[in-house]
Amino acid sequence: MVEQLETRLDVIFRALGDHTRRAMLERLASGEQTVTELAAPCRMSLAAASKHVQTLERAGLVKRTVRGRIHYVRIDPRPLARADHWLRGYQKLWDTRIERLVQLLRHPDNEPDHTK
Amino acid sequence: MVEQLETRLDVIFRALGDHTRRAMLERLASGEQTVTELAAPCRMSLAAASKHVQTLERAGLVKRTVRGRIHYVRIDPRPLARADHWLRGYQKLWDTRIERLVQLLRHPDNEPDHTK
Repeated sequence: MVEQLETRLDVIFRALGDHTRRAMLERLASGEQTVTELAAPCRMSLAAASKHVQTLERAGLVKRTVRGRIHYVRIDPRPLARADHWLRGYQKLWDTRIERLVQLLRHPDNEPDHTK
Repeated sequence: MVEQLETRLDVIFRALGDHTRRAMLERLASGEQTVTELAAPCRMSLAAASKHVQTLERAGLVKRTVRGRIHYVRIDPRPLARADHWLRGYQKLWDTRIERLVQLLRHPDNEPDHTK
């Protein structure tokens, strides 16, 4: 079960590791689009766009519906939530860094203030 | 500038798209470790572990310090914060889904309650 989840996260993060696919998700956040519409602003062939959509599909990030000859694509935000859940486990680490920075800016002698 | 950020995010998400590297980050969250220590629980060669550390280094997720013959690795949470920042842009999408689910569970007739 844990292994399955880990494999799933591998596929999700890898799918997100491409700016064209992230740009597609950004556009899909506003609503369903056809593969042709998704391909247009990227100046890429329909075949290339379709390949990216397939990668997003495998990661569960989008769902494709075929009506007639047209392929409609819509976002499924659940895998994004899963990836975010993993990252938030580390939030404490970067929050602590910001706190330290604020401390340093408040106290130019670079010593944290223990009097408060 | 935007392009640089996009390339950076590509490298970060791809580095996270491997469960061995995520497991390494999980261990590094508790503190600095040597490459040998990182390799041990993964039952992998030092060379294989070093390659994973290199991928994490390229993404800026870890910093390596060499003292004598020993390579120490520590986590840098800033790229994690960057990836999380991107994902949070979509939080509204999954939050809305959860809200809809709660509505459905509250109202077994599957109709949202407009009286409240």
